[in-house]
Amino acid sequence: MINKDQIADQYKLIQDEISAALESLDGKAKFQEEIWEREGGGGGRTRIIQHGDILEKGGVNFSAVYGKLPEAIKKAFAVEEDDFFATGVSIVIHPNNPWVPIIHMNIRYFELNEELRWFGGGIDLTPHYVIEEDAQYFHQELKKVCDQFKDSFYQEFKDWADQYFFIKHRNETRGIGGIFYDKLTPSKAGISNEAIFDFSCALGRAFPKIYAELVNRNRAKEYTEEEKQWQLLRRGRYVEFNLVYDSGTKFGLETNGRIESILMSLPEQANWFYNFIPKSDSLEEKTLSLLKKGVQWV
Amino acid sequence: MINKDQIADQYKLIQDEISAALESLDGKAKFQEEIWEREGGGGGRTRIIQHGDILEKGGVNFSAVYGKLPEAIKKAFAVEEDDFFATGVSIVIHPNNPWVPIIHMNIRYFELNEELRWFGGGIDLTPHYVIEEDAQYFHQELKKVCDQFKDSFYQEFKDWADQYFFIKHRNETRGIGGIFYDKLTPSKAGISNEAIFDFSCALGRAFPKIYAELVNRNRAKEYTEEEKQWQLLRRGRYVEFNLVYDSGTKFGLETNGRIESILMSLPEQANWFYNFIPKSDSLEEKTLSLLKKGVQWV
Repeated sequence: MINKDQIADQYKLIQDEISAALESLDGKAKFQEEIWEREGGGGGRTRIIQHGDILEKGGVNFSAVYGKLPEAIKKAFAVEEDDFFATGVSIVIHPNNPWVPIIHMNIRYFELNEELRWFGGGIDLTPHYVIEEDAQYFHQELKKVCDQFKDSFYQEFKDWADQYFFIKHRNETRGIGGIFYDKLTPSKAGISNEAIFDFSCALGRAFPKIYAELVNRNRAKEYTEEEKQWQLLRRGRYVEFNLVYDSGTKFGLETNGRIESILMSLPEQANWFYNFIPKSDSLEEKTLSLLKKGVQWV
Repeated sequence: MINKDQIADQYKLIQDEISAALESLDGKAKFQEEIWEREGGGGGRTRIIQHGDILEKGGVNFSAVYGKLPEAIKKAFAVEEDDFFATGVSIVIHPNNPWVPIIHMNIRYFELNEELRWFGGGIDLTPHYVIEEDAQYFHQELKKVCDQFKDSFYQEFKDWADQYFFIKHRNETRGIGGIFYDKLTPSKAGISNEAIFDFSCALGRAFPKIYAELVNRNRAKEYTEEEKQWQLLRRGRYVEFNLVYDSGTKFGLETNGRIESILMSLPEQANWFYNFIPKSDSLEEKTLSLLKKGVQWV
């Protein structure tokens, strides 16, 4: 049976592969790495890339932490166990060019004991401007990964992403969704832990190819000052989602995680323009009309 | 006995006085006003000033709303009453110049019935750079207002502000505090409802004078690109506080308030620079050392 060290080792390798692929995609910027240790046990490797040719700010983080479960989390999980182990890879990329989408990926594993263990993760896309062919490509690729493991995965995890990546107070989805899953176990997934683990690795390994395609389709496009402003406004929404709703961020802030690693998900710059209303028939208006749950891209 | 309409009328007048004073202070920008109605009852006047000579973005909002209390709030307040009335004035100002501080003021009144009614509010200052004489002046002026009503108010409400305006995950206060009070009733305050109301009006009327002094002391100061960057980073912290901790923001987001009025508190632009560490003996480092609870400015 696959154990936590094997999972952490493989996730670490995936972090290496993705960092290398992103540096090569950007062609200019290099990751800067911080190795950190957690007081209660374990630690991580935070890698940040900044001021690249295309990647304005991005993070590819690996961590493997263990220790005593905080009381609040024990309550939230409704468990009696005291010890936990958690490992994962987390990525958020904010590009310079408004035509290139923001992307987020996370794969994670959590264990209390041999019976209480589960996987979570997902990939979702936040285009500043929704380009329909790109959205279709993105979802198609995610479906391909899912279909290798179970027929129902794509639709189930796509719907889950629509529910999860939702900015309630704006009545908007964060972007065009993707897939999201949490607390996945053999009994829920209908496949073994090994297969769930393989699924998470396949997602991690699909990430650089998918993002490279989306970057390369759009990186050479010119943009106006108005389009840049719209990007900064959409980044403001991203900040709102992450600080108000994102469970990973909340978990990190409440458990004294390494703040700079948790908040690497925030863009270098975000703006809030009071009461901005897009012009009729503009691309901004079209984008807003597509930021809703239940759009079938495949 | 002072009633809710008299309170709302006076608060509306205070909004007018403050808007006029801020326009005159800026000398260039004018407020734009939105009158809005709330579906469940009542409404407000949102006034936003932007791209001024000194005021980059600011809001002076008045609202008076009534209706049925949402279940979640009934639980939080531990009351059985269904009807509520709430009125208040809320201000946040983000200046262009990093030497000029961000300021926030709020005075509010909440009523369920003639027995269950209370006042809340406060003024707090968030300098990008803490200037000790300005911080002393600010607290001294607040103390003067408090001392007119009760000897213990200043220290009590100053300590409350230190507790409230705290960014737990950064282990920093939002700024240099000020005063904060909530659910103030005659039995808690030791003064009548009329006197508490007069106190809130005195605070509202002290605001323009205090802020004008702080603006005029600093508006002509030149600043470098590095100082501007630091301002943008501090604004990022302001965004973190407001989205993660501020009760008024949370209340608004959870009760379907008018989003653009609630989030007027966010700056036009905020930045997150990964792992920024101020140089030793710099003004940035000094500022950080003063962003803590319990500093006695008076």
